[in-house]
This record gives sequence, C-alpha cells and structure tokens, in this order.
Amino acid sequence: MSVQKPSLPKGTRDFGPLQMARRNFILDTIKDTFKLFGFQQLETPAMENLSTLTGKYGDEGDQLLFKILNSGEFLKNVTQEDLEVGGSAVLPKVSEKGLRYDLTVPFARYVVMNRNEISFPFKRFQIQPVWRADRPQRGRYREFYQCDADIVGTDSLLCELEIILMIKRVFANLGLKDYSIKINNRKILTGLSEVIGEAGREGELCVAIDKLDKIGWQKVQEELLDRNFTQDAIHRLSPIIDLKEGNQAKLEFLKSYLADSAIGLQGIGELEEVLHMLQSYGDNQEFVDFDVVLARGLSYYTGAIFEVKVHHVSIGSVSGGGRYDNLTGVFGLDGVSGVGFSFGVDRLYDVMDELGLFPEENLERTQVLITYFDQKGFAYGLKILNGLRKSGIAAELYPDQAKIKKQFTYADKKQIPFVVILGDNEMELGKLSVKELSSGKQETLSLEEFVMKLK
Amino acid sequence: MSVQKPSLPKGTRDFGPLQMARRNFILDTIKDTFKLFGFQQLETPAMENLSTLTGKYGDEGDQLLFKILNSGEFLKNVTQEDLEVGGSAVLPKVSEKGLRYDLTVPFARYVVMNRNEISFPFKRFQIQPVWRADRPQRGRYREFYQCDADIVGTDSLLCELEIILMIKRVFANLGLKDYSIKINNRKILTGLSEVIGEAGREGELCVAIDKLDKIGWQKVQEELLDRNFTQDAIHRLSPIIDLKEGNQAKLEFLKSYLADSAIGLQGIGELEEVLHMLQSYGDNQEFVDFDVVLARGLSYYTGAIFEVKVHHVSIGSVSGGGRYDNLTGVFGLDGVSGVGFSFGVDRLYDVMDELGLFPEENLERTQVLITYFDQKGFAYGLKILNGLRKSGIAAELYPDQAKIKKQFTYADKKQIPFVVILGDNEMELGKLSVKELSSGKQETLSLEEFVMKLK
Repeated sequence: MSVQKPSLPKGTRDFGPLQMARRNFILDTIKDTFKLFGFQQLETPAMENLSTLTGKYGDEGDQLLFKILNSGEFLKNVTQEDLEVGGSAVLPKVSEKGLRYDLTVPFARYVVMNRNEISFPFKRFQIQPVWRADRPQRGRYREFYQCDADIVGTDSLLCELEIILMIKRVFANLGLKDYSIKINNRKILTGLSEVIGEAGREGELCVAIDKLDKIGWQKVQEELLDRNFTQDAIHRLSPIIDLKEGNQAKLEFLKSYLADSAIGLQGIGELEEVLHMLQSYGDNQEFVDFDVVLARGLSYYTGAIFEVKVHHVSIGSVSGGGRYDNLTGVFGLDGVSGVGFSFGVDRLYDVMDELGLFPEENLERTQVLITYFDQKGFAYGLKILNGLRKSGIAAELYPDQAKIKKQFTYADKKQIPFVVILGDNEMELGKLSVKELSSGKQETLSLEEFVMKLK
Repeated sequence: MSVQKPSLPKGTRDFGPLQMARRNFILDTIKDTFKLFGFQQLETPAMENLSTLTGKYGDEGDQLLFKILNSGEFLKNVTQEDLEVGGSAVLPKVSEKGLRYDLTVPFARYVVMNRNEISFPFKRFQIQPVWRADRPQRGRYREFYQCDADIVGTDSLLCELEIILMIKRVFANLGLKDYSIKINNRKILTGLSEVIGEAGREGELCVAIDKLDKIGWQKVQEELLDRNFTQDAIHRLSPIIDLKEGNQAKLEFLKSYLADSAIGLQGIGELEEVLHMLQSYGDNQEFVDFDVVLARGLSYYTGAIFEVKVHHVSIGSVSGGGRYDNLTGVFGLDGVSGVGFSFGVDRLYDVMDELGLFPEENLERTQVLITYFDQKGFAYGLKILNGLRKSGIAAELYPDQAKIKKQFTYADKKQIPFVVILGDNEMELGKLSVKELSSGKQETLSLEEFVMKLK
C-alpha cells in the first residue's frame, strides 16, 4: 500500500473531544426537554430508497441528494442507448438508494409503514445527520445534524403551546437570554391578502415583505408593483408595516384590520388561544413575539408558523417550524396532520460559541489525574483510582512511568482540574497530595476527604 | 406526484420508541463507563474519500464499501473506452467518496490529520453507524452501530487492565452475569508455534485451532496435517488442547511448556502483569478467562487479544479487541501503537433481549398523563402539567377533548404508569385523583404529595 496524505471530503467535519462535549451539552439539553414533554425518540436509516426521496424536495432538492452506487456490477443494466442519453438515463440504472436529505420524509415513511402500531397522537423526536450536496461555504455543510420534534394526529392548539414551552426551556437551560420566538399563523397571512384585495396571493406577498428588514419598505413596494400588486393593495398594506410593538396591541389592531376576513379572524383566534393557554400554564409571553409577516416556506404550513431568532449574533434563525395538513399524503396515507419544529444544532453551536456561553473547560473532562514516581506509587495509584471511580468520579492513572512534569503536562492539555501526587510520604500516611491546577493550591487529604471535596 | 407504497432498503432498520429506549440504555451505560475511565468522544463524517477507505479492508472489503455517486454530471469524465473496460475503469471516474466501513480507519485518519494538536496518550471513544454492502441475513445488517474505545501512544499494560475493568463495569450495569472475558496474547501464540517446531506459522495454527469447539480435536488434527504441519508438531500441541481449567494452573503449565521460547515467556509475563494489576486495583479475576488459543484476526494484534462471550445465548461474541503496533502507518505516520476494543451494540441488544434483561416497560416513557372532562379541566390540567414538569417529571396533558376511555387507552398504549383524572370534585378541593394503571389503585393526593410519591 502506498502512503497517502489523508483528507476529509469537502463540506464534512470531524468533531474532536472539546467540540463533542459542547455538542453533547446542546443535544442533551434538547433531548431532556423532549422527553420531559412526552416525545419519544425515533431513528431511521441513513440510506433510503431513491423512490422514497425523489420528488419530495423539488428539482433542486433532487439534484442535491447524495446517491449511492449499486453494489456489484453497477453497469450491468446500462445500455449503449442510455449512455448516449446521458446521466438522466443512466442514473436510475446505477443507483437505487440515496442518503437522507431531511428527517421529515423518513418520518412520514415511518408513520405510513407503522400506522397500525402507532398510537396517535404520536409525539416523536429524531436527532440524526442529514446530507446535501450543496456547495460548501461558511456555516453550510454537506453533512449536518437536524433535531426535529413533531406531534401528528391531533389539531389541538396544545401542540403549539408545547413548542413554545420547549423552546423556552431549552434556551433557558443553554443560558440564552436574548432571543425572540416569532410566531404567526398562515390564516392571518391569507386574511391579509384578502383584505388588501389580492386574495390567494399570500405567497408572493410574503416573499416580498420578508425582505423588509434588509431592503426597506420603499423597495418592497417596488417589488410588489413589479409583481402586479395594485397600488391600492400596497396602500392598504402600509398599516401592517408600521404596526405597533407588543403582542396585545398587534392583536387588537389586526382584529379590526381583518374584520372582513373570516379566515384571518380564525388565525387571530388561534393565536389568542395559544397565548391564553400559556397564561393558564402559569408562564408568560416573555420572548414570544407575534410577527404578522413571518412566512417561512409558506407552502407547507396551514396554521401556526414559528421561527426563533437570537439577537446580537451574526447567525439569525436557529429554530423554526409550524403546523401542516398532510404529512403522509405522498405515501398514500391521508389525514395525518400535525405540528413540527426543528432546532438547528450547528447554528445553536455557533451562537453559543459567539456569545461565549460554553464554559471554558471541557464539559466532559476527566476530574482527576493520579501521578506517581515509581512502581510502588503506580500500584498504590491503582487502588486510589478504583476508589475514585467507585464514587463516580472520572479519574485516570498516568499509564507510563514518566517524569512528574510530563504527567502534569498531560493533565494540563486534557484540562483535568485536579492532580493527585503519590510520593513515599503520602503512601506512608495513607494520604493524597492534591493539587488544583487552576489555583496551584496544594493540600493533603484522605481519599474520603478528597471525594467529599469533589462532590 | 404519484402515490407510492414506501419501503426500507434491504438490510436497514427503523428504531421505534421502545427499541430506542433500550438501545439508549445500552449506549448510555457504555458511554458513562468510557467517560469514567477518561476516554473522550470523537465523531467523524459518514462519508470519507475513497482514497482513505480503499485498500484497508482487503479485496472483499473494497467490494463491500458503499460508494457515493459524484454530484452533478457524474458521467462527464467517462470515455467510451472506460465503458468498454467496465466497472473497474468507470468507478474511479463516477465516485470519489464512500460510506464509513468501520471506525478504525477514520480514527487513524483523524490521528494523522490532528497529530500536532492531540496530546498522547490519547484515549478516544466513538459510537457511530457503519455501512457494509454485505448480503443481509438474520443479525447481519447493512447499517449497524460500532462502539469503539482505543488508547494510542503508550505501551503501558494499564491499558489492558482498563479494558477488562470497563467490560466488567458495563456488563454489571447491564445486568449480564454469565459471561467470559477471554484473554490471550499474540506472543504466546508465537511461542506456541516455536515450541512445536513450526515457528512463524501461528496464523495457520490458530485458524485450525479456532474450530476446536465446533469440529473437535480429531478434525483439527486432520486440518493441521492438510496444512503440512508435522505429526510431531501436532503431537506436541496436544497438551494445549487438554489444558486444565483455571488461569493460575494454565499460566503455571505454560511457563514450563514455553520455557524455550523467549517471546512466549514474554507473553506470559505480560498476562501475569495485567492480572497482578487487577489485584492491586482491588478487583478479582472473576469473568476473566485465559484462553491459550484465542486468536481473533491475528494479523492485526501484536500483544493482548480480547473477546467477550456471553454464555447460554445463541449469539456468542459481543465484544473484542487487542493491542496493535501501527495504527496510522498506512497514512504515513509511524509509531502510533495502541490497544482498542469494540462493543457490538446490536449483538448486546439481541443478548439482553434473549435473556429478558430489559425491563418490561419503556425505559424512557412519560410518567404521568393528565386527563379531563371539559374545557375547565383542560385549563386546570395545564397548571398541574407545569407543576409536574418543574419537578422534573415527564408529563403530558391529553391534547384533545375526548372520552376518558380514549384518554386512558392513550396512556395504556404509551405505557404511561400514572393517570391523573381532573373532575369537578378534584378541582374544587385542589386535589388530584391519581390512578396507577398496573394495579388499578386510585387515590386522591395534592400535587405535592403526588410529586413526593413519584420521586
């Protein structure tokens, strides 16, 4: 075998010990919350049949699927004619599987295949990597984790409440304090297009309004004109742009603004109901921000729409979702509606990093390194090692007989906070010399005293 | 879009809520142990460059790699000539990435790429799926998890001790009580072939002896003769076959049997040293079984060899590993030796299942379902829900207004052990009616009393 200089595929990453500890901190926080709220974990295979995946993400999505070459003689069914036609004719004959592109389609497939065993309402969460052959760039990877929770088989607005509550709990436990849970309702957007006299055009309307923050109201008006919205419609829209702050004020305004749209008022009613439940639960509207123009991939959502933005960081949206009507229709099972949302784990990581919210030290580090001078110290160290681990303290004995300095360097690099030094004196007294590396403070303790100190 | 009946690719599986809870029980037990022993987690991408993967697993392994089709115009570099040659000429032009086949090669790649940042000895663990285009059959999947721990950069026999201790801890915590940690040393096998007069042929010797349990000593002798071992060598081997039970007895015998082999005696010495350390640690040899003919993929191992067998189950080996000399040589970095081993998670799952060691109930289930009769009960239920969750109790409120019977069915199917019933009486008194589903016992408690009962 020739010697190669190894490399990673474009757009992929290794996660070393420090990154893993930080990722686990985020993922464990999310998992704990999902379980506290009664969600159950699901895992699906990385590989799905291409028949399951294609046609679900639009033409661009189909292009971005990673396809797996059939095993064995993969060319065996390819004809000369196929080759002349090119990739489109050859692809179906050389590949029948692809890598998961998101967690929603595999979830829909799972629900259809297991519909007789599942008891609805079904609350599931799923935390797994997905793959997309996107052009890699800063913050965009070809392999990344998604972290989805969905409730299917109920129309109850309790689901919307639970999503808000879960986001609040996760963010509180991560130490994130400056963010907004933006919330809207598809029915309000439909009502909006009705009352400005452009019924059914909420999709186009939202695409344009979505750019408000970036390009300003003047440019948005120009875009709407380009899209053949009437001057009158644009004029009627302007109160929405100047909407007052505060959920209550917005709701009051919208109630009269949408007075002529039954569906619009229904959307307002649903939103009010969710906020009312929040109060009954004993929580408040802190962090919750009714955003009349929030749209997010409008085509999928039929009711509530969510998006979470962290303030004062370069990365904006870290979570989003909404209510949908028909999860499984494409696989022949109608009537499975639900609400879902997703945490962007990579984005949360970057946000936590940018805000300096991760503790300095490795969160999963070893607590104690035992060092020694000679064979006698090593044997004594083994006993101490056992005692520490029996108390649940992550501990290591330096494996090789080496200079104390080298052993300390190991502790230092691995960010192990306490070093035990076993010299003849300590062994005679049955004690431990314990040095705390951050302060340099050294003391002599019994094993029991040391365990007490660490607990 | 046409309606399809969805299916899973051959050899892959979904893991539903109950299976996930059980898998997590196993994986969390293993992870806890790894961390207690100072191992740090690593994750590598599912996709690796084919240049990293090919040539590492033999010709058969190369065949079993799942290859990923290049994105975009994958046929663009393929010439008419390539097509006439066939798959071998076309493959390198249409695919440059593959799916991870094991965790060892990605680990070696990681060590080489990060050698300047890693502080050695480096103790890492890695728990991720791997993919192999094997023919699927019972217990053999195309996607399955591996669960590896390695220590590289030290020759200390402490590593061997730690492997034994970690296996014992994991098995104790899983409730597995009838198993053997078989242990041997490559040097003993080398010594064996020396003293029977067939120096250097320990590989062939072990392939034959490995079948002893299945085909018996008579057939093993025939195979050795077929392989041109001398009658004399086979005769000299026979005491090994009839070896007494007990590690100490075996070691004593081997010391005289291998008296003429320096390397053989070195192997014995290493094994004795590990057992001696086990004693210093304050543990004993229970479950540890010196097996003179244990070989396991001999070519890789240079020192200790491990294999764990659970008794009285159809699946035998659930874990194995050993010491190796040169992890990273193939990527141009020499001198990285280490010890590693791997838990077979799918096999452990099957063993636990066969022995009935999983608890009856779902390990990650919701503890409490709150049921109610009307809107007033729902609003009151929201407050109770909040109270339970604040105490860390996984709780749900039934989302829809439905008959109590339907709400109980939900609890039953989801194996939720306690149901709270909120009627007018309970709400007036500020109490909860709590029913334990397993016993049918019902009592009236305050929220605080109920929380105390659950804790």
